[in-house]
Amino acid sequence: MSIELWLWLVIGAGILALIYGAVTVRSILSASAGNERMQEIAKAIQEGANAYLKRQYTTIAMVGAVVFVAVFFLLGWQVAVGFLIGAILSGAAGFIGMLVSVRANVRTTEASRTGLAAGLDMAFKSGAVTGMLVAGLALLSVVVYYFLLTGLMGFEPVSRTVIDSLVALGFGASLISIFARLGGGIFTKGADVGGDMVGKVEAGIPEDDPRNAATIADNVGDNVGDCAGMAADLFETYAVTVVATMVLASIFFRGLTGDIGVDTMMIYPLAIGGVCIIASIIATYFVRLSKGSRNVMGALYKGFIASAVLALVGVGAVTWSMIGFETDITTAGGVTFNGLDLFLCGVAGLLVTGAIVWITEYYTGVDFRPVKSVAKASESGHGTNVIQGLAVSLESTALPALTIIVGILVTFNLAGLFGIAIAVTTMLALAGMVVALDAFGPVTDNAGGIAEMADLDASVRETTDTLDAVGNTTKAVTKGYAIGSAGLGALVLFAAFTEDLSYFAQNPAEYPFFAGVAVDFALSNPYVVVGLFFGGLLPFLFGGMSMMAVGRAAEAVVAEVRRQFRENPGIMTFETKPDYGRAVDMLTKAAIREMIVPSLLPVLSPIVLFFVIWFVGGAELGFNEAGKAHALAAVGAMLLGVIVTGLFVAISMTSGGGAWDNAKKYIEDGNHGGKGSEAHKAAVTGDTVGDPYKDTAGPAVNPMIKITNIVALLLLAVLASAA
Amino acid sequence: MSIELWLWLVIGAGILALIYGAVTVRSILSASAGNERMQEIAKAIQEGANAYLKRQYTTIAMVGAVVFVAVFFLLGWQVAVGFLIGAILSGAAGFIGMLVSVRANVRTTEASRTGLAAGLDMAFKSGAVTGMLVAGLALLSVVVYYFLLTGLMGFEPVSRTVIDSLVALGFGASLISIFARLGGGIFTKGADVGGDMVGKVEAGIPEDDPRNAATIADNVGDNVGDCAGMAADLFETYAVTVVATMVLASIFFRGLTGDIGVDTMMIYPLAIGGVCIIASIIATYFVRLSKGSRNVMGALYKGFIASAVLALVGVGAVTWSMIGFETDITTAGGVTFNGLDLFLCGVAGLLVTGAIVWITEYYTGVDFRPVKSVAKASESGHGTNVIQGLAVSLESTALPALTIIVGILVTFNLAGLFGIAIAVTTMLALAGMVVALDAFGPVTDNAGGIAEMADLDASVRETTDTLDAVGNTTKAVTKGYAIGSAGLGALVLFAAFTEDLSYFAQNPAEYPFFAGVAVDFALSNPYVVVGLFFGGLLPFLFGGMSMMAVGRAAEAVVAEVRRQFRENPGIMTFETKPDYGRAVDMLTKAAIREMIVPSLLPVLSPIVLFFVIWFVGGAELGFNEAGKAHALAAVGAMLLGVIVTGLFVAISMTSGGGAWDNAKKYIEDGNHGGKGSEAHKAAVTGDTVGDPYKDTAGPAVNPMIKITNIVALLLLAVLASAA
Repeated sequence: MSIELWLWLVIGAGILALIYGAVTVRSILSASAGNERMQEIAKAIQEGANAYLKRQYTTIAMVGAVVFVAVFFLLGWQVAVGFLIGAILSGAAGFIGMLVSVRANVRTTEASRTGLAAGLDMAFKSGAVTGMLVAGLALLSVVVYYFLLTGLMGFEPVSRTVIDSLVALGFGASLISIFARLGGGIFTKGADVGGDMVGKVEAGIPEDDPRNAATIADNVGDNVGDCAGMAADLFETYAVTVVATMVLASIFFRGLTGDIGVDTMMIYPLAIGGVCIIASIIATYFVRLSKGSRNVMGALYKGFIASAVLALVGVGAVTWSMIGFETDITTAGGVTFNGLDLFLCGVAGLLVTGAIVWITEYYTGVDFRPVKSVAKASESGHGTNVIQGLAVSLESTALPALTIIVGILVTFNLAGLFGIAIAVTTMLALAGMVVALDAFGPVTDNAGGIAEMADLDASVRETTDTLDAVGNTTKAVTKGYAIGSAGLGALVLFAAFTEDLSYFAQNPAEYPFFAGVAVDFALSNPYVVVGLFFGGLLPFLFGGMSMMAVGRAAEAVVAEVRRQFRENPGIMTFETKPDYGRAVDMLTKAAIREMIVPSLLPVLSPIVLFFVIWFVGGAELGFNEAGKAHALAAVGAMLLGVIVTGLFVAISMTSGGGAWDNAKKYIEDGNHGGKGSEAHKAAVTGDTVGDPYKDTAGPAVNPMIKITNIVALLLLAVLASAA
Repeated sequence: MSIELWLWLVIGAGILALIYGAVTVRSILSASAGNERMQEIAKAIQEGANAYLKRQYTTIAMVGAVVFVAVFFLLGWQVAVGFLIGAILSGAAGFIGMLVSVRANVRTTEASRTGLAAGLDMAFKSGAVTGMLVAGLALLSVVVYYFLLTGLMGFEPVSRTVIDSLVALGFGASLISIFARLGGGIFTKGADVGGDMVGKVEAGIPEDDPRNAATIADNVGDNVGDCAGMAADLFETYAVTVVATMVLASIFFRGLTGDIGVDTMMIYPLAIGGVCIIASIIATYFVRLSKGSRNVMGALYKGFIASAVLALVGVGAVTWSMIGFETDITTAGGVTFNGLDLFLCGVAGLLVTGAIVWITEYYTGVDFRPVKSVAKASESGHGTNVIQGLAVSLESTALPALTIIVGILVTFNLAGLFGIAIAVTTMLALAGMVVALDAFGPVTDNAGGIAEMADLDASVRETTDTLDAVGNTTKAVTKGYAIGSAGLGALVLFAAFTEDLSYFAQNPAEYPFFAGVAVDFALSNPYVVVGLFFGGLLPFLFGGMSMMAVGRAAEAVVAEVRRQFRENPGIMTFETKPDYGRAVDMLTKAAIREMIVPSLLPVLSPIVLFFVIWFVGGAELGFNEAGKAHALAAVGAMLLGVIVTGLFVAISMTSGGGAWDNAKKYIEDGNHGGKGSEAHKAAVTGDTVGDPYKDTAGPAVNPMIKITNIVALLLLAVLASAA
């Protein structure tokens, strides 16, 4: 098939995902939204979520506008437009996901009145819409802009304009995503922690009690944090990984001619994305409860396994027909492999995904040692619960890291750095399905809250609780997947950085800034060590800043709810309703204010490090080549430093948080004294600690890692275009 | 002066330290040990500490014997004897430190009856003994064995036998130190956490109450963990750093002839150590409370500053007379510097020490934002206290890391890698004084416990509490210093690894294993990435394992104390005394059992990684040079990986733990509701969480980092001697 046909097929697959989304949304909206009280609550959540996201995106837009102008002047309009596309579509993915989930929540509550199967169906459908939109929009953004640049505008696929534009597209997606992840995470956990503190602890009223002014904010948070934030994050991971793989292909296969040219290799990752979207769409129909079964996790896994198996077949078919299993391909660096090797890399990517899913479930599921040990430690008090939870969180990093290590070794030996890139691309090609499983979580969480607030029959809450418990696990699993793939994806970005750099250095006539610059990336170069340390500190500092931000946001909520209880005693006696809107508003302001500085940390760090080392080190050297080489070595090493510590920080936070959460649930199921026991109180403390760990700081480390890498890539591009 | 004279001067300085120790011990022992009840308590602590350490060292001796035999057969008897010297003296430093402190504790209580100045004097003297013994023994072990090898046995200073023997000496020290740090840490925090849980929380009796069977164990723990464990740790850091600097010198200055030969440069770090010991001894006389003042910290700082200023003068004098300020020296790698540059590196080392001390005090002192913010967060509950504490712990890594980064850049630009080594050597040359400040802590902690148990006048407890509060800060400061210097020291070890390796590769005739092996340490080599990840996971896994070990040890204590309360109701009514010995015995068994596996993790990791990659990767390549190069690249990168994450994990744990501890103290001083308030309860939870963080896992990461590095160096030596 011709290259152009492949591009059209990929575009077709992307459009199919959008159509799937549109059709499913219609089916969701046609379902009943329940009684008046339920609709009233749902409306409050919708309004809150809408108001928050509008405000968040307005703020981000201001930062984005500055960056857009900078990119425009530094790298030209095509690159700036790429940035814009990435930013807008990343935002859109989050916004649409939120729009759907705030409508699906109340309909899930209503469906749960008829039974578990109906509730599951509604919640999963809503997740699937978000999932397919994320994957579809991400794929479409890259493929369409690539098509426009190389087809309509006639740029060479390997030209700087095409590469820089694609990188900028990834940057746009990353920039939005870190703000959305962090802002949403601060909002949702500020509401959660603050609401629990003032409601459960101080006023002694249950969770989701309508007298608590923070309840609506809590539900809003699920939608803007766990749903919109996560969607933006996965959009970014997807887009950035595909872009990085294409950039690597453009460098490695620059000289490839004949049937399989550099354009084939650049479109190959896109084709993998396309076929996997179709696999994911088909697999959604496998998610169904067996008759009479209550095994919700089993139903979801059926869909997940179906998507993996179909993806395997699809990737095999694409590889066979695009490249052929036995044709040898040689990279510019002299690595030779064939299509079968690439296919096996894809298989390795799927196996890594499977292993990470299993490991995450082991560390966060109630059936295994880690969660049980945290629950048991709760018997002897708050302190021991937290100690055991921290111990589990630290330990939980080892197996995922080993999995990634084995993945790197296997795929590199199969097909070099490009093999690693193809493995990650295949991993991420399943994003549609994974996001579907994840976005399911906040919807069921909301559904439970609505059932509680609307005072529905206890059986409804029981059904939504069953769904919600599964949602907790799928959320943890998705985070493990997102971070694992981000770790590997960042390696691909780092490879793109070093390859780009060596290409520039080899062509000094074209890129005069790099004339005579010989960058030494060896570990024995102290600038590399300095870069590793500097990169290594970023996830720690970022994590600390975002945990503090949650603390401050929670304090704002506590102050507001306390004020309402004090000034309006009728709230406690159900005579008057609390002012939910003010709590939402309060939190909106706090979250927006708090997200700015930590988000800018990874954006500015590579730039600051480069110029500080170049200027300080370079001044002595008269700003010569050696100074440039030192600065570039430090920045490159920084990228790896941020991956190395970031991976561990993120996994420890998300797994640890999940373990604390489910240890509480395990106790609430009647173990170690059950609800209300001293062990339960200790477990609530652990859960509170885990909240910002797993839903704010941990997941935000993921886009943080990548934004550092992609800013560094853009920095190179700017330097390359400098005289 | 001749080289031999310098060696004798260094030996003289070491002996002076031992004499200072002996004289001071006599002066301590001549003081009154208080009334009968006090002596009885002190005796119980002495017996417990003795019994524990004997058991611990017996167990370690078994591991050590296996290693000794292995080293003997692999590298010859001189190397094996080096290992033995390091191991025995490291153990001795810990043991003697413990012997002194278990006698000084009760005398400090007694002295505190006359006043603060007398109490401070006694406690500091005891710390100074340990400090000078640690520095003196460490320096003597290296200098005497070096003297024997090069003088008596006539080996060339640059010969493999000398270098391998010195490295083995460092290895012996490291091996003992990781067991001692970890075993002692598990013991002390198992007693602390377990005792608090069952005493304060369950039985509602105050801390150090004699009815709690775990109180003696708690006091024993202070001596075997904070005193003996810390002494072994600092002995190791000192010895390993000096050795690594000497190894670097032997490689860098191999070809140096004339007045300043390779032996001059190898003895230069020893001379720095010698002059700084003398500076430290003199400085101990500056520690004195101004008349009527209660500023204990100020008195200690006077000593610290005096030691730094004297050291500065001393290092300057040594450099000037050994090397001369203006003589240019050129390394084998072509880096040129003069004596003044080296002196400035020493100054930089002292400045880094000062900065780290100041930063640690900022993050753990009650007068600054971090501790205050944790205290304030306690008002809203256990969860928010822990969240804020974790946030502080993450954030606290940034400034020390930046300090180290600046230190690396400055010293490297002054005198290359050797400059970094000299900076760390100078940093560690102050170890005598720093250990004195640290060992002061457990003595005052014990003194308070004895005052409480012996039912002395409240004013005595008040005096010891004043001393103890300062002890908390000095302990945190020492840990920051130990970890900062360990991070830099490990870099020197890593440099020794790469330099050794490249020397072997350049001399394939002599070292046939390395023939044709070209190791690529560039970050773009996936084996380097794999090594970084693998190294990165070790501190996390190690931290998780040791936190869990504390949890299990604490549970053993809880079970035992509960049993005693149940079976012997007379304990609560003061009618019968609890069986303190059984609790100590219980904990001894638990701590010894729990220390084995985590301690072996860093010892075995480099070896396993090397052989797995060589065999698995090599099998495909027929075990050829490429396989060796991959494996060596991975092991080298692993060393840096373990430094990068280890530095952050260790700093975050020790600073975070210190902040939690002092936040509790701050509340107990009457802030946020004071003792007994809800905020105080939350702060107690935070303190409990911080205990294993700051006293078990965090400090043990320090020897863990270095043991990985030194095992890798020995592995190289074994491979070099292979046919």
